This record gives sequence, C-alpha cells and structure tokens, in this order.
Amino acid sequence: MSELVRSYPLSVRVRYAECDPMGILHHAKYLEFFEMGRVELLRASGFSYRELEDRGVFFVVFKLNVKYHLPSRFDDELLITTSIERMTRARIDHAYRVTRDGQLACEAASTLACVDGNGKIIPIPDEIFVPIPG
Amino acid sequence: MSELVRSYPLSVRVRYAECDPMGILHHAKYLEFFEMGRVELLRASGFSYRELEDRGVFFVVFKLNVKYHLPSRFDDELLITTSIERMTRARIDHAYRVTRDGQLACEAASTLACVDGNGKIIPIPDEIFVPIPG
Amino acid sequence: MSELVRSYPLSVRVRYAECDPMGILHHAKYLEFFEMGRVELLRASGFSYRELEDRGVFFVVFKLNVKYHLPSRFDDELLITTSIERMTRARIDHAYRVTRDGQLACEAASTLACVDGNGKIIPIPDEIFVPIPG
Amino acid sequence: MSELVRSYPLSVRVRYAECDPMGILHHAKYLEFFEMGRVELLRASGFSYRELEDRGVFFVVFKLNVKYHLPSRFDDELLITTSIERMTRARIDHAYRVTRDGQLACEAASTLACVDGNGKIIPIPDEIFVPIPG
Repeated sequence: MSELVRSYPLSVRVRYAECDPMGILHHAKYLEFFEMGRVELLRASGFSYRELEDRGVFFVVFKLNVKYHLPSRFDDELLITTSIERMTRARIDHAYRVTRDGQLACEAASTLACVDGNGKIIPIPDEIFVPIPG
Repeated sequence: MSELVRSYPLSVRVRYAECDPMGILHHAKYLEFFEMGRVELLRASGFSYRELEDRGVFFVVFKLNVKYHLPSRFDDELLITTSIERMTRARIDHAYRVTRDGQLACEAASTLACVDGNGKIIPIPDEIFVPIPG
Repeated sequence: MSELVRSYPLSVRVRYAECDPMGILHHAKYLEFFEMGRVELLRASGFSYRELEDRGVFFVVFKLNVKYHLPSRFDDELLITTSIERMTRARIDHAYRVTRDGQLACEAASTLACVDGNGKIIPIPDEIFVPIPG
Repeated sequence: MSELVRSYPLSVRVRYAECDPMGILHHAKYLEFFEMGRVELLRASGFSYRELEDRGVFFVVFKLNVKYHLPSRFDDELLITTSIERMTRARIDHAYRVTRDGQLACEAASTLACVDGNGKIIPIPDEIFVPIPG
C-alpha cells in the first residue's frame, strides 16, 4: 500500500434508536462509529475491509480508551475523524475525535490486532502494511 | 425429535441501552427477544441452535408481523412466550406473546426457512423435524 | 403542511456491527432503517422529528409487517424508499421498499399513532396533517 | 446507604443479535453488559436505578478503558463482575471483569458522574453516597 491515508473524517447523523432514555446517544454506540471510521479510512486508501475478510484477514479490537466530553442528541450531525497513529506487523493504533459543530464531543484510542479466520493472531499482511512508528 | 416442546416462556429484563428517548423499549428490540425465545424453545427440546449452525443448519426469518399494545420501560420484566404454530419441511411458523405483569404488551408471528452455510434453502433436517399442521 | 413529500429514498450503508454470525444484516436492523426513512421523509417536507418531540409530539409504531427477500451483507449499499400510504387524524400508514442494486431485498408496512409526552394518544397535529385516503 | 454492596456478579448469555460476522460478541456490546452490571450492583444495595432517574438523578459515563482478552461466541454464558473501586461526591469508579468458564474474557474500568435531568453535573445524592477512597 503505497499511498496510505492517515486520517479520515466521516459524517454520521445520530439515529433515534441509538439514543437512550436520557435522550442522548448511548455511550456504547460511539464504538460502532469508530469501527465505521476505520472502514472508511481503509477505503480511502483503496481497500475494502469486506474484501479483506473474504480473504481471511480480520482485525480485532483488543484495547480501547474513551473519553466522553459532550452528550449528543438524536439527529445531531457528528464528525468522526479516525487517524492511524502507529502500525507495526503486530498491531495498529488508531485515534478518534468526534466533534459536533466544531466542539469536541468524544475522543478515543484503540489497538487492533490482525487475526485469521480461526481467530489466530497473524502479522498484518504486506498489502496493507506500512510501518508507522508511534 | 420425539419430544418437541411446543411453547416456552422466557423472562427478559429490559436493558437501559434498549430504550429510546421516549423512555420506552425500542420497537426493534422485540425482534431480538423473539429470536432469544426461539433459541430457548429449541433448547427446551434438547437442541442447541449454536450446534446446529456449527453443522451448517441456519434459520432465517422471511416474514414477520408485530402488533405493539403497551410500551415497556427500562427495568421492566417481560415474559416472552414463544410457540411453534406450524412446521413443514420448508418452514416453521412461530407465534409470540410478550406480557408484563400479565398484561399483553406485544404479539407477533414469524415464518422462518432453513438454509445452509451459503444461504441456499434446504429442507428442515430430520433431527429437528416434527410435522405440525397449521 | 401544504407540500407534503409522499415518498423519499434514503441510502444506507450496512455497518459491520449490524451484521450477525451468518454474515448478513440482522433482520431487526431493518426496523431502524425504516425509522430513519420516516425521519428523512418528514425532513423532506420541511419538518424535524426532533423538534416535534421537543414540542411534545411523538409517533409510536403499533403495527408492522416485514417480508425479507434477499440477505444483505456488511458494506452493501441499500436504498430505503419510504412512502406515506394513508394518513388520518388517528394514524399514518407507511410502506417501505429496500433495494440493493435495484433488486428488492425487503419490503414492509407500518402503522403509527401520535402520542403526547405521557404516551396518551392524540390527534395528529394540524401542522403536519394532510388527509391521505388509503 | 449503610450497607453498600461493593461487588456483584451478573450472569449474561450472549445473544445471536449481539454477535458479528466473525461469529463473536461485538466489542461494543460489552459496554451494555457493564451498564447492566452497575444496575444490578445498585439493586443489590437496595436501590433502583430507574427510580433514581424518576427522581432526576442520572449517571453518565465520562471515561472508559477496556481490554479484550478472549472472544466470546453466541450462547456463551459470561459472568460480569462489577465492583465499585472509588466514590467521591463528584464521581464513581467501577471495575469490571468478564469471565467465561473461569477464564478472563474482558476487563474494564469506568468513571461516572452524576447529572440532573438537564445534564448538569450535581453531587452524588446522600441516599446512595458512601465515601470510598480509591
């Protein structure tokens, strides 16, 4: 992968079903947004995560930190900016910033490992590997 | 399957994350409860749906009718009664009644077909088949 | 509401977290798409469902029929076409067609009632009411 | 609250709809389990989170760390052990351990703040406050 896109902004509108009785986006739902962010970041570099899985390459989250700053409500438009912070053969570190009208609503960091179809950890394949020191 | 259990009551407590800004159980969540009801109904007859899938036998919903009678709130305890109404080689019809303190909250009916690992429709296997005229 | 939009097409990409172990969009998730379709249909007529709720006007689903025709996979782009079929003071009937590359994946129909903040059924308010005989 | 229960084990069976195309419990779903763990821990001390909310006392997650150790599959029974690690007037720190057949599947820590119905931060009310130095 010669032209790795390092950061990608994804716009997401908060769905009704994603909000809880407080009337705000449930805190677990951000993790789905981060996952969508990673998929779109990969696509921006010319890769389809679905095709990777079809070839037996899977990524699993094994560490996650989240800080929630501002609540979001139904119908809010959020900007999820996903960045690759570090990549070795063994792991990828991403950072995430969620903003609403320019204000920071949530920030997070995750570490992913690459596994095969049986869940066994494998090195990140050549095709999507670019060394990025942290 | 000689001793088919025809009806099974499953108790479910409504989770916070399952409720929406109206403060009530989101209407889509009932479908997950029906799915849980089918799994437990099968288990009551001595079968594990997970093991069926491991052997390449899957069930897919292809028709569904739901009537919502009363809203349910976070922390409510619901009783999901799942019944087999009809079984042929090609399909299973289930009925569902959701009650809260004896009051009918929701009722539904579904039709499922059996598919293999590639999504191709197959006859319901002998081991779990008992003809039930509708 | 003088210029009621009767039908609206919404494009949705299937999320990873929305798919189940069969690798397909979980059947309950379509109901969230229908809800999104109704919100966008309303917006196309110049109304915000969020603002309606802020003024104490809520819509609740009380009947729903769904037919699933084709499975959808992660990353598929679906077109959700939501239409108003009938509107009286007491209820709104919607129809939904979900297509993927022009093929029908799912179709559905729902009936909604209007309630106030306490869940009491109220007539659909003037501002969004246009009589549509079924 | 004189008899605060400091730790509570909750048994949860993984639902089909909670698993993803890898066939494993989606990583975002653990957060719902932690939330359920907090609700049951509170109940074990004689409090209903629903009643707290009805009186205008809400808890919001503002920090979260998760480490995923082992994947879980559909139908697995998980034990979610939720503990209060620290409580001041301003915040509660919880720790979570998720085990399956005695093996650690996931561990996590969260920090919650107390807010009123408008989302404004308030001191944790007397009735449920017991100082716990970290």
